Amino acid sequence: MASVNRIVIIGGNACGPKAAARARRCDPHARITIVEQGDYVSTATCGFPYYVSGVIAQKKSLFGRELDYFTNVFGVDVLTGTRAVAIDRRAHQVEIVNLKTNEKASLPYDKLVLATGSLPAVPNLPGKDLNGIFTMTRIGDALALRDLLANYERKQAAVVGAGLIGLEMAEALKVLGFEVTVIEALNWALPTLLDVEIAAQVEKHLRDKGVKVIFGQRVAGFEGDENNKVKRVMTKDGGFEAGLVLMALGVKPNVTLAREAGITIGKTGGIAVNEYLQTNDKDIYAGGDCVENVHLITKQKVLVPLGSTANKHGRVIGTNVTGGRETFPGVAGTAAIKVFDFNVARTGLSETQAREAGYEVVTSLVPNYDHATYYPGYKEITVKLIAEKKTGRLLGGQAVGPGDTAKRIDVVATAISFGASVDDLANTDLAYAPPYNSALDPLHSAANVIRNKRAGLAKSLTPMEVRAKLDGGDDFILLDVRTKKEWDEKRIEAPQVKFLPVQELRARLDELPKDAEIVVFCRSSVRAYQSQRILEGAGFKKVKFMDGSIAGWPYGVDVAKPS
Amino acid sequence: MASVNRIVIIGGNACGPKAAARARRCDPHARITIVEQGDYVSTATCGFPYYVSGVIAQKKSLFGRELDYFTNVFGVDVLTGTRAVAIDRRAHQVEIVNLKTNEKASLPYDKLVLATGSLPAVPNLPGKDLNGIFTMTRIGDALALRDLLANYERKQAAVVGAGLIGLEMAEALKVLGFEVTVIEALNWALPTLLDVEIAAQVEKHLRDKGVKVIFGQRVAGFEGDENNKVKRVMTKDGGFEAGLVLMALGVKPNVTLAREAGITIGKTGGIAVNEYLQTNDKDIYAGGDCVENVHLITKQKVLVPLGSTANKHGRVIGTNVTGGRETFPGVAGTAAIKVFDFNVARTGLSETQAREAGYEVVTSLVPNYDHATYYPGYKEITVKLIAEKKTGRLLGGQAVGPGDTAKRIDVVATAISFGASVDDLANTDLAYAPPYNSALDPLHSAANVIRNKRAGLAKSLTPMEVRAKLDGGDDFILLDVRTKKEWDEKRIEAPQVKFLPVQELRARLDELPKDAEIVVFCRSSVRAYQSQRILEGAGFKKVKFMDGSIAGWPYGVDVAKPS
Repeated sequence: MASVNRIVIIGGNACGPKAAARARRCDPHARITIVEQGDYVSTATCGFPYYVSGVIAQKKSLFGRELDYFTNVFGVDVLTGTRAVAIDRRAHQVEIVNLKTNEKASLPYDKLVLATGSLPAVPNLPGKDLNGIFTMTRIGDALALRDLLANYERKQAAVVGAGLIGLEMAEALKVLGFEVTVIEALNWALPTLLDVEIAAQVEKHLRDKGVKVIFGQRVAGFEGDENNKVKRVMTKDGGFEAGLVLMALGVKPNVTLAREAGITIGKTGGIAVNEYLQTNDKDIYAGGDCVENVHLITKQKVLVPLGSTANKHGRVIGTNVTGGRETFPGVAGTAAIKVFDFNVARTGLSETQAREAGYEVVTSLVPNYDHATYYPGYKEITVKLIAEKKTGRLLGGQAVGPGDTAKRIDVVATAISFGASVDDLANTDLAYAPPYNSALDPLHSAANVIRNKRAGLAKSLTPMEVRAKLDGGDDFILLDVRTKKEWDEKRIEAPQVKFLPVQELRARLDELPKDAEIVVFCRSSVRAYQSQRILEGAGFKKVKFMDGSIAGWPYGVDVAKPS
Repeated sequence: MASVNRIVIIGGNACGPKAAARARRCDPHARITIVEQGDYVSTATCGFPYYVSGVIAQKKSLFGRELDYFTNVFGVDVLTGTRAVAIDRRAHQVEIVNLKTNEKASLPYDKLVLATGSLPAVPNLPGKDLNGIFTMTRIGDALALRDLLANYERKQAAVVGAGLIGLEMAEALKVLGFEVTVIEALNWALPTLLDVEIAAQVEKHLRDKGVKVIFGQRVAGFEGDENNKVKRVMTKDGGFEAGLVLMALGVKPNVTLAREAGITIGKTGGIAVNEYLQTNDKDIYAGGDCVENVHLITKQKVLVPLGSTANKHGRVIGTNVTGGRETFPGVAGTAAIKVFDFNVARTGLSETQAREAGYEVVTSLVPNYDHATYYPGYKEITVKLIAEKKTGRLLGGQAVGPGDTAKRIDVVATAISFGASVDDLANTDLAYAPPYNSALDPLHSAANVIRNKRAGLAKSLTPMEVRAKLDGGDDFILLDVRTKKEWDEKRIEAPQVKFLPVQELRARLDELPKDAEIVVFCRSSVRAYQSQRILEGAGFKKVKFMDGSIAGWPYGVDVAKPS
């Protein structure tokens, strides 16, 4: 008689339960055990900020399947409140301890799954243990913070780190009535995800919503009051008041158990796994936040801890620990976040990352609308695409605005998984009807801009480059080709700006010196690019347009002047 | 001195103007002329039904760029009210006539672009010329119908044809207060786009909204009253009253001019073009509704007249008539339509089309939600995927429901452009955050169901197959494994139905005969598939689940009984 396959899974969130359920469906007879140190499994980690803010009203919404569903339906034993403290690889057993009774036991396994997740990265700053300083990674954090905030003085709050959790929590605290300051050591919002053009729009939106943002400054420590409660965030410039601090400096893979058992840890700090999500021990698999992934573009190992990836890992592992042979191809680095009324999404490499990885790149920055503007309810989105200059291969995309950005990034993520070029993307047959899209999707336009640049037709400067020229007092013409009505509503005011509507451009060419450096802009760049071509057709030699034009200009055009 | 390139474009909607604008940007010196028989160019054809209903309030929303923009900015001559009546290919000139003055002229060209669009297909039925019978393809149709309806008696209206325009117009007329009957010769809604499982949900929604639908019946003709106004739609069963009739039997390519000039017309009836959108005459290009396209999956020629494709064609042609070399790869057959509160989208081959094309297929039908159910505002969507059985290659997808279906179909459309398999799709790194998605996208789940079927783990029947077994009085158990609460809310009532919640299944296996044929269902099929595997693990041999379960059952479960 064949012996029963004993599968032990360490970790009860996302990857672990998914692996258990999949393993059960593949093998009706396996003995499957989940070991989870907390009291719950399958909690909705990504919902924590929304539970804190009250957008998710009920605590029960954060809990996934109940424990008895695992027992009765999946036929999986779940040991909650139980910590795995050691792995004896030779004996094929896991040493566990019941955290309430301190009782110890050994769990024998044929296949072991490490789904130990991640831990918040908390630097060792002076005052970090003061009351009122929180992280947000486990369900206990969310439950405790919401309870605490029910009767908390609504004054200054600080969020340390402008990443995904940082910005979600900044919104949550703002919604709850705090004055919120976000402080980030790097130079812009979501700095590991976005380039500056897109991040600048996020920053503007945060400011519009009343959130203070401080970029390029590190927190030096925290000062407490006489009750040991945090009252001040300190920086080298002095700092600011905060009676509540949320530490959101990202997470690191929880690999202690694996490392102590001699499992190979990659250079990224995550557990090293092959495409079957198998570690260097053939009977030990690992998935979720604790492992490193292959990046689909660079083929490098990266840490991208996300619930979506953890769930995919779970299926692959569930198949493989029951005798199957399934592979996980890697991640594109896709991410999405709601920041108040803005939808922000990205995938692939940012321009920054692409340049760091050695690519010569060409980009586009295209403000647009999420569906036909003759159909009610359309909203703005700005798309940035990044492609390899030599080949036109799509490397990444970012989108921001009140409109539907996640859809576009899903398309880009799918396209880059197959090595798509901007030519491919420009002709992709996307769903069109006025309530859903324009005849050309914003991605088509953004891809075409890159095609135009690669063909030498379109030439541009980024808003940041134009800003630097203005600030540096460069001698050039910043040509605004919009209508008089648009000009009256808002404009960039600088000595270099000249106003000449595109409708009059052909007739008034003699007002522009042929040898001048001219940078054209309009609202979205469509008319600006057209103007560039008109001027070049008329013999002008030094003409470019400004990527993104007014709609992509993050420096406060609303007030008719660069800030 | 190089001579100026003379480009003549026949047709002023979508493809034509796009080709003109692109040609101008590629060649500042070309002489470009658009010949348009109507009074306007670049009208928003896809908005016509919404203008008729008033969702698009202003007439001006239907008009694109004004004529003087073409002149002043693009430097393009637009001859409106002018018909091209013949092409003299040897002399390289187009004979035109001014429709107001009857003045004739010849327009010489170096490159000619045929963007002559499509014409409504109107069969020669008795009474087809009665007053009150309309088509909806040109801006004049939309303007006239809205004006007419301002003072029209709101009684019965008929829509002939349940395609895209038919259903959009059915909604428009219903919104305007008509009693609407849709009559369609084929057997379900959007019959050339959807399979029956998805179409059945559209049909149910139409009925829920008070639209009468008649499928599988042809219109035999129309009866008029004493004022020559339509009063009755006749069928072989007698017909029904209708004081207003909208003929929506699709369109056919407008190729008369091309045919008369000896341009090759394909078997589909559209102008034959190569990948450069060049006809058999090297100086004549064609694009938009009047040409046939290559289908990306079958590589066959197809007619898919859509504004999105026409715009892409325009760019390709604009490049190629100015000396460039750009290709159009083909279409995936993507389409989207809003039907009242349902969003319907599809791409690739339907199951019907795939079988007709000779593929052996495997499909999934997966009810799901458009984002995390713990985050407010999630809505239902049902996804059907079609894959090649032998290889797992994705052939097509359809999605329906109040939730965001267009996003999913855009991803499928992108994936199939690259020959993706369901394995690829299942691991695509799509954007995840609770406001936008679940950790696993509905597409991931739908792809995994097909993987499970291909692996022999999942076995299913479609709702239609189950319905036929019930109607045929087959001896089998239709096992409902939902909770008691769900059972009380709604259920399928039939002698074959047995209720046994999945939570109790393992404990009550002896209530089921081991040799019985069992078809399991739940709400969405997740628990049903799990139950199938539990039963198989316990030695049951003839177990399947019902694709789509209750959520995919279109036969009126709300009333607790098949209709």
